[in-house]
Amino acid sequence: MTINRQWILRQRPIGDIEPGDLELVESPVPELQDGQILVRNVYLSLDPTNRIWMSDIDQYMPPVGVGDVMRGATIGVVEQSRNAAYAVGDAVTCFDGWQDYVVTGGAQVLPKGLPLPAYMSVMGATGATAYFGLLDVGKAKAGETVVVSAAAGAVGSIVGQIAKLKGCRVVGLAGSDEKCAYVVEKLGFDACINYKTEDLDAAFKTHCPDGIDVDFENAGGPILDAVMNNLAMNARIVVCGLIAQYNETGPVRGPDLTNVLMKRARIEGFIILDFLGRFEEYFAEMGPWLAQGKVVYDTTIVQGLENAVDALGLLFTGGNTGKLLVQISLEG
Amino acid sequence: MTINRQWILRQRPIGDIEPGDLELVESPVPELQDGQILVRNVYLSLDPTNRIWMSDIDQYMPPVGVGDVMRGATIGVVEQSRNAAYAVGDAVTCFDGWQDYVVTGGAQVLPKGLPLPAYMSVMGATGATAYFGLLDVGKAKAGETVVVSAAAGAVGSIVGQIAKLKGCRVVGLAGSDEKCAYVVEKLGFDACINYKTEDLDAAFKTHCPDGIDVDFENAGGPILDAVMNNLAMNARIVVCGLIAQYNETGPVRGPDLTNVLMKRARIEGFIILDFLGRFEEYFAEMGPWLAQGKVVYDTTIVQGLENAVDALGLLFTGGNTGKLLVQISLEG
Repeated sequence: MTINRQWILRQRPIGDIEPGDLELVESPVPELQDGQILVRNVYLSLDPTNRIWMSDIDQYMPPVGVGDVMRGATIGVVEQSRNAAYAVGDAVTCFDGWQDYVVTGGAQVLPKGLPLPAYMSVMGATGATAYFGLLDVGKAKAGETVVVSAAAGAVGSIVGQIAKLKGCRVVGLAGSDEKCAYVVEKLGFDACINYKTEDLDAAFKTHCPDGIDVDFENAGGPILDAVMNNLAMNARIVVCGLIAQYNETGPVRGPDLTNVLMKRARIEGFIILDFLGRFEEYFAEMGPWLAQGKVVYDTTIVQGLENAVDALGLLFTGGNTGKLLVQISLEG
Repeated sequence: MTINRQWILRQRPIGDIEPGDLELVESPVPELQDGQILVRNVYLSLDPTNRIWMSDIDQYMPPVGVGDVMRGATIGVVEQSRNAAYAVGDAVTCFDGWQDYVVTGGAQVLPKGLPLPAYMSVMGATGATAYFGLLDVGKAKAGETVVVSAAAGAVGSIVGQIAKLKGCRVVGLAGSDEKCAYVVEKLGFDACINYKTEDLDAAFKTHCPDGIDVDFENAGGPILDAVMNNLAMNARIVVCGLIAQYNETGPVRGPDLTNVLMKRARIEGFIILDFLGRFEEYFAEMGPWLAQGKVVYDTTIVQGLENAVDALGLLFTGGNTGKLLVQISLEG
């Protein structure tokens, strides 16, 4: 009998996630029925939005139910198959949550050719988020100045590289001098601001002398306030995430909208689910960039499903560079 | 010798306008040069944006200089002409500020056919603001729910009537039961919320059961906060004005952007100056509506240039219905 470990949401966190909010429980993996496959999860994707799913605020999906397995995307390997469409050894993506094993009748088989983590970052929803947010929502054009918060993070790192390939001036924000160096030297941004130590307003005036045309917003809070003070005419603020406020317990206030008026600016939110039908457009453009070495991507991998909750915290403390994954089992 | 009274900005108001911020001074009207006309101002347009022009915040025009005549739009009558393009008695619009007389080489001659105040409200920039904001920026469509703050005001009253003519459900907000009755009974809105006495969130849930598709925002502050809690998917918040914060002295915070993300909403500011080249599109549609009695407009007229500063305060206390004008002299 194979044992499956599952992270169960026991109560909704208030502010930071505390011990007892989630619990790791064990249960036997059920017998396969005809048409089903058994997937052994290898990588679990950790994303800021996971914190939203734990809350019962109005959101873009139903929140995870108290008592349910924590929601999450995984890449796994088919260990047993009673479905002719799947062979043992196939790598697949699942959306069945934080657990060792998935028994399912359907999962998407991954292509071959890239390391598995790439399909959770640059060649997955993370990269597509960067691409459609920047170009479709933000309508970034050559010659424009693009600002990217969480620039060393999974999405931000791809946003900036795409913006550079499209001919934009790109200024990132990150939380340490080491990350800023990485963002400029390895990712090729024109500049990167350490938002923990620099005067944001002065830094934007230095690095964005003509104002900010597109802000790819992952943070919110004081960073967004400073962005609003440095907008170019007809600026677009693309709201991809607001991680600065996900652990807030009181009422959250947003940025002063005065410059939305004065600069005829647009603040627009998007959810990558709305672009699922267009991912191939993105892969068609990113594939060659990757093959030609024009885009790089990094991954921070935390070992062990038992460490998933602690690992999620890294997103809020800036402990990761690039895509954050939990390794649940070995690939081979 | 004709004496001209002019309101001079003496110092920038901090918070509410105080005595001493503006001063009414007298000087002789200069002699006309060849090519010039002398205009006797009849009506002065008062608008919330006047308060912005008195501040030195980053804005869409240079602020009025300290020591300069307060900026404002007027309608006047040509009293003397040394320019063949103008006849004595022509009604013209000027943008030379809060004063009795204007000596100028150029002013736009008004068409005939409507009372002069109409050219400062429904058939002027006020109406065009309503039209382009609602339809061009907000992209309101038949069947959608439109919310309009300051619904009994100059712009809001036109927004709602246009939205009704376009097949929308329209819910206004106003600051008294009398105004709410006016908005529903005379302007034809589907409902109007008294924002001073009603629970805004509950009222929106009652009157906008499918959520708010378009918010034509003139207010900001708590009204906008409640709007953000009641957005429909893909909602558009059109920022026309933020009068709730124009007299703020401390840092201003805006609405929580969480639902911009969850509802894939768009907040977009606009300034009517950007649409000057398209006013004829608006007049072509509004003219027949007016002629057919499908749109009504009201005007609150305060007598006397000397009362202009006090009159401006009515916009912030809700003392006007429809367009607020100062009558500087008699038409005839």
